[in-house]
Amino acid sequence: MVNVVAEISIVPLGTGSPGVGRYVAACVGVLARRGIKHEVTPMGTVVEGNLDDILQAVREMHEVPFGAGAQRVVTTVHIDDRRDKQLTMEGKVRSVQERLGG
Amino acid sequence: MVNVVAEISIVPLGTGSPGVGRYVAACVGVLARRGIKHEVTPMGTVVEGNLDDILQAVREMHEVPFGAGAQRVVTTVHIDDRRDKQLTMEGKVRSVQERLGG
Amino acid sequence: MVNVVAEISIVPLGTGSPGVGRYVAACVGVLARRGIKHEVTPMGTVVEGNLDDILQAVREMHEVPFGAGAQRVVTTVHIDDRRDKQLTMEGKVRSVQERLGG
Amino acid sequence: MVNVVAEISIVPLGTGSPGVGRYVAACVGVLARRGIKHEVTPMGTVVEGNLDDILQAVREMHEVPFGAGAQRVVTTVHIDDRRDKQLTMEGKVRSVQERLGG
Repeated sequence: MVNVVAEISIVPLGTGSPGVGRYVAACVGVLARRGIKHEVTPMGTVVEGNLDDILQAVREMHEVPFGAGAQRVVTTVHIDDRRDKQLTMEGKVRSVQERLGG
Repeated sequence: MVNVVAEISIVPLGTGSPGVGRYVAACVGVLARRGIKHEVTPMGTVVEGNLDDILQAVREMHEVPFGAGAQRVVTTVHIDDRRDKQLTMEGKVRSVQERLGG
Repeated sequence: MVNVVAEISIVPLGTGSPGVGRYVAACVGVLARRGIKHEVTPMGTVVEGNLDDILQAVREMHEVPFGAGAQRVVTTVHIDDRRDKQLTMEGKVRSVQERLGG
Repeated sequence: MVNVVAEISIVPLGTGSPGVGRYVAACVGVLARRGIKHEVTPMGTVVEGNLDDILQAVREMHEVPFGAGAQRVVTTVHIDDRRDKQLTMEGKVRSVQERLGG
């Protein structure tokens, strides 16, 4: 099983309004329903888990804005996969914070 | 069937050499074997086709650098999906070029 | 003055080790010294502030891994700039959370 | 002088139409006027040149959609900077193609 940390960003274009919060919330709802560990950040949603599960969730999330009326969707997935040690969301942030605090 | 244009970038970290061409070439080979239309650009590989086929290819490509000895791989997928008209790689570039030439 | 929310990711290639925490910490230190509001997330560092200040910080941060011995650096900056209302890091996350909690 | 290869993507949100070609063309026009070597690809515009010149161009390009009526703009800059040998747009593609053809 391949465990990764990834960031997902899904943006509808041409909706007529610069606000996209309701689309983003509906996409994050997919992660909650699928039981994928996630954290909403100001620029995307960070997830941690099995890569195949995450890619399936991305596929479902990508359809959400179309279902809500969007005609164009730009989705970005950024995957960080390290196999010599286990990456976690907390561990990645802590690794930076500890060095900053030193 | 959902046809999209997407860009894929797969980068191994910590390989001991700043060159990554051989890893990239092996990843692009996956697209060729799978018959997915693609174009190597200086900053990634652009693909056009069915979104599910593309995500399956990404999944396979992401493993390639690990198979070649990398311990960490950062993969980015950037998907542009428009449903009111068919996006193509050529059409997207032409749409910009025509306006520039006018 | 243009205030934006942005995400910065700076990754050295070919360092010989898959760990990059010390490089990331040194880059984040630049933001602290420059007094730019920032938050370390598992996949990047999110900043909020004047766009010109942020781009100057990015320019300085991009040099940090070279100063620490890296020979190749891949830097990504993702800028979200909304002019009809003020974007903030907290506001963006809250806009999603409120809809999820409703 | 630091010479890099980079990819720039500038997308307006909430414009009321899923098409963004005219905005992209106006952004690319900035590169042409500034004499920065560039190539329009299906998913972004790739540039080659001095990093400071490129960041200044990005700053100007980022304003273009606002000038054309957009209220929100998402700009992504992806910089590849290698110091042990000179990166070029052609060289990066050739490095992959040669391995594929071999």
